This record gives sequence, C-alpha cells and structure tokens, in this order.
Amino acid sequence: MKLYDLAGADAELRFSPFCWRIKMALAHKGLSVETIAWRLTEKSALPQPNAGQVPVLVDGEQVIADSWKIAGYLEQRYPDRPLFEGAQAKAHALLIKFWVESSIHPLFARLLVPGIFGILDARDKAYFQETREKRFGMPLAQLASQREQSLRTLREGLGPLRAMLAEQPFVAGQAPGFSDYIVFAPLQWARCSSGIALLESDDPVFAYRERMLDLHDGFARKAACAGS
Amino acid sequence: MKLYDLAGADAELRFSPFCWRIKMALAHKGLSVETIAWRLTEKSALPQPNAGQVPVLVDGEQVIADSWKIAGYLEQRYPDRPLFEGAQAKAHALLIKFWVESSIHPLFARLLVPGIFGILDARDKAYFQETREKRFGMPLAQLASQREQSLRTLREGLGPLRAMLAEQPFVAGQAPGFSDYIVFAPLQWARCSSGIALLESDDPVFAYRERMLDLHDGFARKAACAGS
Repeated sequence: MKLYDLAGADAELRFSPFCWRIKMALAHKGLSVETIAWRLTEKSALPQPNAGQVPVLVDGEQVIADSWKIAGYLEQRYPDRPLFEGAQAKAHALLIKFWVESSIHPLFARLLVPGIFGILDARDKAYFQETREKRFGMPLAQLASQREQSLRTLREGLGPLRAMLAEQPFVAGQAPGFSDYIVFAPLQWARCSSGIALLESDDPVFAYRERMLDLHDGFARKAACAGS
Repeated sequence: MKLYDLAGADAELRFSPFCWRIKMALAHKGLSVETIAWRLTEKSALPQPNAGQVPVLVDGEQVIADSWKIAGYLEQRYPDRPLFEGAQAKAHALLIKFWVESSIHPLFARLLVPGIFGILDARDKAYFQETREKRFGMPLAQLASQREQSLRTLREGLGPLRAMLAEQPFVAGQAPGFSDYIVFAPLQWARCSSGIALLESDDPVFAYRERMLDLHDGFARKAACAGS
C-alpha cells in the first residue's frame, strides 16, 4: 500500500491530521504502508480519483481518497483488529468526526497556521498564505499575535474530551478505535508542526495524548517534529 | 416505575432535556412509567439518593439519579430493545453526551431561558432567575433582547449534526439509539418551552426532528407545548 501524505519543506515532517487518522488506523491493523511525501500544490501528482487533498491510499488496483472512506475501506478489506465495533459505533464516530472537524480543527488551525507557514515547502507557501488569510480574515502575522488567546480557547474547546476522560481512557472505551485516531489527529498535528506546549501536564488530555503516543510500539511518538 | 420530571406552573408542561432523554429511552424500550411533576426548588421531595436534580427514576426498591446512569440501569435491567449496540457504541455516546452538554445545551439555554422563566411555577422563579442571570452574566431581559443572535448561533452550532444527517438518518445510524435521545432532547426542550420557530423547514435538522417526533407512536409529538 502507498499513502500520499502531506509533507513540509523537510520531507520527514508529516503533520496533516487527516493523514494521521489513516497512519494510526494502518498501525492499529498492523498493516505496512509506504508513505509518499506530497505538497499542497501537487494536485496533479495524486492518483485518480481524488479531491485534490490527502490522504489518498493506493492498495493494488484500488485508489481511495478521503480519510473516512479510507477507514471504511480498510475495515472491509482487512477486518482483523477492527476500527469500529459494529454499525452503531461507526455511526456515532461519524458525528464525532464532524464535531472534531467543525469545532476542534478550527481551534488548532488558528493556533498552528502561522507556524505551519514557516515549515512548508517553498512551492506551497503562497497558496497556503492566501487560503488561510482568507479563511481567518486576517494576515498570518495578526493570527500569530493572538497565539495566547488561541491557546486558551483551544484548551477550553477540549472540554467534552476532558469530561469524557474522567470516565474512560479512550474515546472508544477501554481500548482505542478509529474515533480515537480522529480525536488524537489534531493533537499530533500540533506536536509535529510546532514546539508549542499545547497542554498543561496535569490536564487529563495530556495523559490521553501520552497513551495515544504509546500505542502500536510508540508509532506516533517516533514521528519527526518541527519543534525538536 | 416512577420518574421525577421537571414541570412548569402548568403541571402538563414538561421540558427538561435531561428528563426527555429518559422518557424517550423508556418509550424506546416499551416500558411504562408514571411521571411525577417536580419543581426546581423541591429538592427535599426527591427520593434518596439524588443530586438535587431530575430525572430521578424509582423502580421498585431502586432509586437512580442522573440521566446517563439511568440509561445504563435501564439497559442492564431491561436488555430488550437496546439503547446501545455494544460497549464501543456506548463509549462513543458518552463523548457525544459531553459535546451536547458543553456546546449545544448552552446555545439552547441562551435562547430559551427568558421564556422558561415565564412558564415556571411561582415558587421556582426567584431561584431560576438568580442562577441563570449569574450563569449568563446579564439580566434575563437583556438575554431576551439578544434572541435573534442567539437563534443564529444555535443554528450554526448544529453544524456537526447537520453534516452527519447528509449520510445517515439517525445519530445511531439507520435506527435511533440513546445517542439520538441525547441529541433530540434539546430540540424537544425548545419545542415544549417556547413557540420559537427554531429551524428552517429546509434544514436537515428539521426533518430529523420530525423523524424523532414520529418515533414510538408519536410519543414526543404528543407532549404539551407552551407555545400552542
């Protein structure tokens, strides 16, 4: 299998949260994959069909784009070590996915985007700056100046996860599932793209991130990080 | 079984979202219950143990408080017509519960609280006004004056649900589960406590609410509403 994976100027820097969902899912299933460094502006380098974004998975003759569709494909094609325990668990995970994308990713983006600009490949910078400045309605430098407020807002936004962690160690319960890879992905996005101390060490989300970094022989912990 | 259920000055008005979760769960399981009208200031009228809030369920010798615990109790004691399909589905529902309580209930409260003050029993009004004005940091009249903005913000806040509804008819997938009762409860809270036109008729959330109102022989649709 091959996975097209967003990279920075340093091809070892892989920080896309959507790609991390799939890299974790593949590690969960014990499947090996060759990741291919891809830059935002290399739309034409992706195999068809695709939506101009990563992840795109190539498995023999199959090309699957979109992280949710890839998870469903992996589950059907490689049913061992399931990502979802049944149809209702998967249905619930879909609402969690949309919550994370609507409410959590924007809080991370607000904090991380100025730093990501700095580590992107030179070919991607103009495209990235233009799309992100439009999205946030301000220059990247102004976004960077709001970092402390963005960090506070992000920590508050993790409230539902924090409350849940008082009752169970993983989103999926006693063991991790794809829902955890959805929730962990933005934490890994921050970790790989910045040196920001995202969480206080006494925050239950900090301990959760540690548990996630330990999974699958410390798979996510081994990833290259821009801040280190 | 008996369920202590928040009521207004009119004992037929039952609008608490936490109680609606349980009334829907009981209807889901086909269990009959006697609901007992309870007012916010009647702390001492509740059977022990309780946390000064409803719902409290009495089933023979058992007294169970807290809607999540009641759902778990019902599932264990009356396993037919399950509310959860397995441990992972339940674990996911717990994160959905905290998302709804942290991010969705406050949007509804901001819109509904001034109207709820008007329908409460006289004994509850002073307590309610004091606690809610403290929570929102402003007089109820000021909150009421922000109604249009509150409605817009609420509709935006339903974005993750709206996106999910493009792919499946219920939070639990093809058929409703307890997760749906968690998500539907604030919609019913609004419906029973106000005449506000909460949703545009072309909003997928509107159609979802209709599906929920139709469940269990139109159980929720039959509830008394303050606006009608």
